[in-house]
Amino acid sequence: MSPLTAELNTGDSFDQQGQLPPRGWITAFPAVQTERQTDTDLGVPGEAMKLQEPSVESSGSTFTPLVVLELTLDAKEEAVAWLLSRIRDPQQNGGAELLVEQLGPGVGLQEKENPNMFLVGASRQRLLSGAEDVGLFKEFNDGSMRGFTCSNKHNFKDFQGDGDNFLSMAECQYIIKHELDTLRAKDETHVPGYTQTKLYPGKSIIRRLLSKGILIQIFPLHENEELKRLCFTWYKKVKLSLQPLDDIRHYYGEGQALYFGFLEYFTFALVPMALIGLLYYLFDWEDYDKYVVFAMFNVIWCTLILELWKRFSASLAYNWGTLSRKKAFEEPRPGFHGVLGFNPVTGRQEPLYPNAKRQLRIYLVSLPFVLLCLYLSLYVMMIYFQMEGWALTVHDEDPTFWTGILLFIPSIIYAIVIEIMNIIYRCAAEFLTEWENHRLESSYQNHLVLKVLIFNFFNCFASLFYIAFIMQDMVLLRQSLATLLITSQILNQFMEAFLPYWLQRRRNKKLIRKLRKRRTLEDKELPLAEQVRLEADMSTYLGTFDDYLEQFLLFGYVSLFSCVYPLSAVLVVLNNITEIYSDAFKMCRVFKRPFSDPAANIGVWQLAFEAMSVIAVVTNCALIGMSPQVKAYFPESEMQLILWTVAIEHGLLAFKFILTFLIPDVPKHIQIKLSRLEFESLEALKKKKMLEASEFSKSVQ
Amino acid sequence: MSPLTAELNTGDSFDQQGQLPPRGWITAFPAVQTERQTDTDLGVPGEAMKLQEPSVESSGSTFTPLVVLELTLDAKEEAVAWLLSRIRDPQQNGGAELLVEQLGPGVGLQEKENPNMFLVGASRQRLLSGAEDVGLFKEFNDGSMRGFTCSNKHNFKDFQGDGDNFLSMAECQYIIKHELDTLRAKDETHVPGYTQTKLYPGKSIIRRLLSKGILIQIFPLHENEELKRLCFTWYKKVKLSLQPLDDIRHYYGEGQALYFGFLEYFTFALVPMALIGLLYYLFDWEDYDKYVVFAMFNVIWCTLILELWKRFSASLAYNWGTLSRKKAFEEPRPGFHGVLGFNPVTGRQEPLYPNAKRQLRIYLVSLPFVLLCLYLSLYVMMIYFQMEGWALTVHDEDPTFWTGILLFIPSIIYAIVIEIMNIIYRCAAEFLTEWENHRLESSYQNHLVLKVLIFNFFNCFASLFYIAFIMQDMVLLRQSLATLLITSQILNQFMEAFLPYWLQRRRNKKLIRKLRKRRTLEDKELPLAEQVRLEADMSTYLGTFDDYLEQFLLFGYVSLFSCVYPLSAVLVVLNNITEIYSDAFKMCRVFKRPFSDPAANIGVWQLAFEAMSVIAVVTNCALIGMSPQVKAYFPESEMQLILWTVAIEHGLLAFKFILTFLIPDVPKHIQIKLSRLEFESLEALKKKKMLEASEFSKSVQ
Repeated sequence: MSPLTAELNTGDSFDQQGQLPPRGWITAFPAVQTERQTDTDLGVPGEAMKLQEPSVESSGSTFTPLVVLELTLDAKEEAVAWLLSRIRDPQQNGGAELLVEQLGPGVGLQEKENPNMFLVGASRQRLLSGAEDVGLFKEFNDGSMRGFTCSNKHNFKDFQGDGDNFLSMAECQYIIKHELDTLRAKDETHVPGYTQTKLYPGKSIIRRLLSKGILIQIFPLHENEELKRLCFTWYKKVKLSLQPLDDIRHYYGEGQALYFGFLEYFTFALVPMALIGLLYYLFDWEDYDKYVVFAMFNVIWCTLILELWKRFSASLAYNWGTLSRKKAFEEPRPGFHGVLGFNPVTGRQEPLYPNAKRQLRIYLVSLPFVLLCLYLSLYVMMIYFQMEGWALTVHDEDPTFWTGILLFIPSIIYAIVIEIMNIIYRCAAEFLTEWENHRLESSYQNHLVLKVLIFNFFNCFASLFYIAFIMQDMVLLRQSLATLLITSQILNQFMEAFLPYWLQRRRNKKLIRKLRKRRTLEDKELPLAEQVRLEADMSTYLGTFDDYLEQFLLFGYVSLFSCVYPLSAVLVVLNNITEIYSDAFKMCRVFKRPFSDPAANIGVWQLAFEAMSVIAVVTNCALIGMSPQVKAYFPESEMQLILWTVAIEHGLLAFKFILTFLIPDVPKHIQIKLSRLEFESLEALKKKKMLEASEFSKSVQ
Repeated sequence: MSPLTAELNTGDSFDQQGQLPPRGWITAFPAVQTERQTDTDLGVPGEAMKLQEPSVESSGSTFTPLVVLELTLDAKEEAVAWLLSRIRDPQQNGGAELLVEQLGPGVGLQEKENPNMFLVGASRQRLLSGAEDVGLFKEFNDGSMRGFTCSNKHNFKDFQGDGDNFLSMAECQYIIKHELDTLRAKDETHVPGYTQTKLYPGKSIIRRLLSKGILIQIFPLHENEELKRLCFTWYKKVKLSLQPLDDIRHYYGEGQALYFGFLEYFTFALVPMALIGLLYYLFDWEDYDKYVVFAMFNVIWCTLILELWKRFSASLAYNWGTLSRKKAFEEPRPGFHGVLGFNPVTGRQEPLYPNAKRQLRIYLVSLPFVLLCLYLSLYVMMIYFQMEGWALTVHDEDPTFWTGILLFIPSIIYAIVIEIMNIIYRCAAEFLTEWENHRLESSYQNHLVLKVLIFNFFNCFASLFYIAFIMQDMVLLRQSLATLLITSQILNQFMEAFLPYWLQRRRNKKLIRKLRKRRTLEDKELPLAEQVRLEADMSTYLGTFDDYLEQFLLFGYVSLFSCVYPLSAVLVVLNNITEIYSDAFKMCRVFKRPFSDPAANIGVWQLAFEAMSVIAVVTNCALIGMSPQVKAYFPESEMQLILWTVAIEHGLLAFKFILTFLIPDVPKHIQIKLSRLEFESLEALKKKKMLEASEFSKSVQ
């Protein structure tokens, strides 16, 4: 893995000597620091930032760039000036009270260098009050997690002195994003310079600019030193220890960390399955009339791991302070459009889109489209079976080594076609869901996930179900499963990590070569301007959707059919180990840093995995019922066999639901902590009221 | 119905003339009003009470008795004095700041008249601040429901002048109960006069006294005028209109009103089923090979009515202000005992009981006991089948009119035995759940409901399942179902309404006869002291448990097997109409007034009904699969038939779950109202912070 990482990011070019550079990139660009005095009206020295040099801090207040705003090259000057002033305005005047600097010119490598790039930062005081605004939970003196408040700041565990290093950079960036997102139009009717781009009082300015394409992107900056440290503990050293989840959360936020936590948990949960599968393979227990035990184990395993994950995830979310954090009020998504009207909830003027129209679009266009795609997928499946049959006849007529290989070809082609169809469908689903014009991001996400899940499930598993239950050919099922699993894994790893890495590397190399041509790099570090422009060119990380989807499908392969091919769990474990490394690598080196996402759980995916585990119970019971071993128990009547199978299946399903009900979703010790917090706030409220009452009675006397 | 009500309650003795008495009973007992001046330190005249006479109000502050405390006859004087002083103490000193009066002596009819009866009331100011404490939701000026606050009181819709009539008497009584319940021990180590009855700081005094038997009971008083008005609109006039749910809620609170709302809703929901059933009966579609259509209808009906009920119940709860009301912190139940330790949540000293010990009791004693009871129930069922067989042979040998009747005898006996077993089991379940020593009332209730539900379900339906699926005798199933349903309905009505009414009536008659002997009743009204003592002797209403249980079993009869006996829905509708009247009657005339219970939904019963509807899907599919009509479609292979049945069943179950998921639990317009409230509180918080920030920056300048 380590040769892969070399030279990808210029910050890495000296990492091969194993030395961590003593200073962050910020010190290499003094131009920014000379400008910092412009925004010191709050007069608070020092920033909540770990890369500070002592020499820099001595000069009073510093500007630490946290987030980058990139406007279009041809943005009107008045619009830019207006935006910057709104961002800088104090909060009383409806501004965001943040610090903004224009990014200095780079070395001018590219022909068209965008001058409209701005660095956003904030004073420490502003960040702390922002932390209160977003409802950040931090560790209190007594070890519990509490909502941060400025008035109570000294009682928080890591709050020392002025609060340096209290907030992580990811938290600061999240706060800045929140403050930018909630920067609202006042009495402006349109964006200055763009009479067509209307604004309504109370609408988010940034979202408006983003949806109109005036603002190209907004992204947080990487911290090179932190990142190097993280890479080292995460994937660079060969180790048997767990992933540094707390560090990942510290750098990328809770959503990312939960994904990697889930990946790790799921991989560990698969180990018993893999071991048993390996035993089956080694001792040749693989005759497919012996998978009853395996199927039973499978059913219980599915239910248990999902329940235990909920508890584990609650523990993580509690320790990260997102479990009891309240969701902010959800704003319409940037792409939402409609006729101007009054929102019944906020009373504000904003675009409204009738729900009936959206429902019509969903049921008259999207639904038929999804069904059509499912039909197409079925059609492709039938072609696959014809190819399979043709390969078999060729092999049977004149069996040679080459026809033996030919037997696998249809499955491999089919697996590749499945992946391609998934990708095409994904684009279509995104287009359709966008077109459905959902008002909230969460509603958009739910509809997209549902569309994609149904199709991917059908596309990946339909052929296996067909082979298992219509053709009832267990040998073919096993062969098909193995080919599908292995091919899709190889394709995935290639598409997910290697391809973006390779593209990124080519781009970087070109840049560095140019840079070397123009001037000799005396300092080993890149200047800030170059660094920012480099990051702006990196691919954007699109969230954990695809990663969870991949795990969902792997979970399907294991839970639905692994009793037929016990090695599948082994394959998935191996895949997930490399997946951890490649995902970590792509997060650190291939993509822009994503904004952290204060997730408390894996959301809709928990539901998806649980639905899959219900389907797994049904499938496994059916497979058990079809096994010759079980059939031997009912030599006379096949009806008796089916009735018993159905009865056992119903029993297992009932057992599963009762188990889900019995196992508490949140571990006891965290429940106690949560109720203690609740109790204390109730008591505090009561005390406050008592005080008020006694003051009142005193004033009356 | 009206002859039944005469003379039950002395207040009714003049109701036969149809005149409503002009004054409440309070005016008939001036002794109380002379004492009221002792507690007027807050100096607030007038009480939140509708029974006020103008003549009384003119004398300044009045005392309105709301709740009665009855202590044991031999309660130590110092304990009584201490309790009264704690109740009267101002809140700053840790008291409840309520008004208490001793009940004057009655006419001395009973030999041992308990002097330790106390009437509790409160000043209007205290009630309003108590309403804020309990988090009462009232209607705001703009029509939305908001948490009441004293500072904002004039913006609530019905708040006029000093707030007279703003709180209903039921709300006042609930507030007083809450204030009494949260009256906590300060530095007392034991109850004065009872060195054995230890107290810990922060423990509820009233609960301690109740669990030690020093306090016998605490109950709210009826309002005779209100009650008469309610009776009249509720059940006394023959009408086609709906129940006065808002009035019921006004008098009895949300929990009761939700039960009657559910009863009404369920009855209406049954009407289509009943109509179709009647058609089947009238046009002789009753051949039992035609119930496929009925079964399909049944399955969809079950799912729909439960989903729609959730929405209806949310509407009711929103309008009554309980939907978004937060639950108060739950205190240990009075009967809970254990070794003294520190509660990890509150940090207070209180009895603790190890959870492991409780689990052992549940799994090693309660669970085997329940299983044993189920076995016994099975055993009784087998005896019933033997009796049935015997009756059949007798009838077959020599069929006469009497042997025809004999055929029904075993079913009737079995139905009676089932009811008796249910009652005995109920007592055992209560004893066992008490012995399991649950800390919280909610946990106690859940375990009790679970125990009772499982046994009652088994006891009532096991024989029907046996007949349907083991014996596959549809004629016997229909006969058995009819007998069970009718017998249990008759028994229930008798046990629930007639028996308590008859007992109550006997007691009242005796009292009135004695009263008439001693002195001539010049005034038609009873003196307050007599009225209170009369109510204290009334049976205590034990909550809606039995009522919901009965509805649950009726729902079972209809949803599980009604396709075999379509008239069952008709029977249940008839039963429920009389049930509404008898339940209303028993609430108004047989029982003490219960404290209102601010329920937002029907709680665990929703779950129970939903579980039943899942079982109904399975049962109905199996019945469909067994019908000769369907069997005719698969003349060759029974296996095909079963596979199809199972597939359709799975499809229906999946459809059911998707439907549950798709139908929102809260209607759209209420969702909007709720999110508007949430949005406004967020905005208010933000505004407050902005103000603080600007004040801060001003003070810095």
